[in-house]
Amino acid sequence: MSFLKKTVALSVSFAVVAGLALAAGDAPGPAEQAIKARQAKMSLYAYNLGILGGMAKGEIDYDAQAAGGAAANVAALAGVYMPSAWQPGTDNVSMQGTRALPALWESGSDAGARAMALRDAATAMAAAAGTDLAGLRSTIGDVGKACGGCHKSYRAKE
Amino acid sequence: MSFLKKTVALSVSFAVVAGLALAAGDAPGPAEQAIKARQAKMSLYAYNLGILGGMAKGEIDYDAQAAGGAAANVAALAGVYMPSAWQPGTDNVSMQGTRALPALWESGSDAGARAMALRDAATAMAAAAGTDLAGLRSTIGDVGKACGGCHKSYRAKE
Repeated sequence: MSFLKKTVALSVSFAVVAGLALAAGDAPGPAEQAIKARQAKMSLYAYNLGILGGMAKGEIDYDAQAAGGAAANVAALAGVYMPSAWQPGTDNVSMQGTRALPALWESGSDAGARAMALRDAATAMAAAAGTDLAGLRSTIGDVGKACGGCHKSYRAKE
Repeated sequence: MSFLKKTVALSVSFAVVAGLALAAGDAPGPAEQAIKARQAKMSLYAYNLGILGGMAKGEIDYDAQAAGGAAANVAALAGVYMPSAWQPGTDNVSMQGTRALPALWESGSDAGARAMALRDAATAMAAAAGTDLAGLRSTIGDVGKACGGCHKSYRAKE
């Protein structure tokens, strides 16, 4: 099933959640909650990749345990799939506070395939990063490419 | 190794990161980044548990796929271990913007054991939540207890 179809298929349950949130008064609505949740995930990627990138660049001393842990975290996060956080209508034209471009939800979007590519790259990095610095360096590039490729296509510039 | 010893043992690499962040000028320092990272993780717990709790209470229609996915996310997050995000000195007496009590880092802290209890409870929920509503209902309580117990001991009231 495509990313688009998956997200559209979840619209019914999304509408139910939306109703609940509206009933809760001035609490953030489900679209705001969705944006916050996916941004929280991005923050966790950034935090762990900051450690790994620092080691790969030689800015931080390589530490096998810390590298292995951070890489395992990135792989675990790549497996955290939250379709309800990527509902149609939560793009940067429809909403404030997000840089997600409408193209993410349009026909021909390859966001789902890109997410799988990230997962594969993160799994490979998790298997190598805790062994030695060479293992980290040989695998972090593909993770960066997976992140950057998706951002280039589907995230507005700041 | 205790939670306290683990975090203290990471102080050296933390200091290195701290030096880098200070060199970066007005970027948030490592302590602020640490607090942001752990709060991002809490946000992701809350988002996924919001879906599961809504279903368990009957406020949202039970959906096996969504429940199984959200429960798998909670279990994956419970495995995201970020020792550098829990450095000593990032408590609510030392820092703004956190409710983490100093007791979390004090002798006798059982935060590590509580984290393991959450992991066990989340794993059990992930195994049952996608089967049926009864499976979700019979397992979500232990997850809530693990969250609440740790918050009661180590998080200041709002």
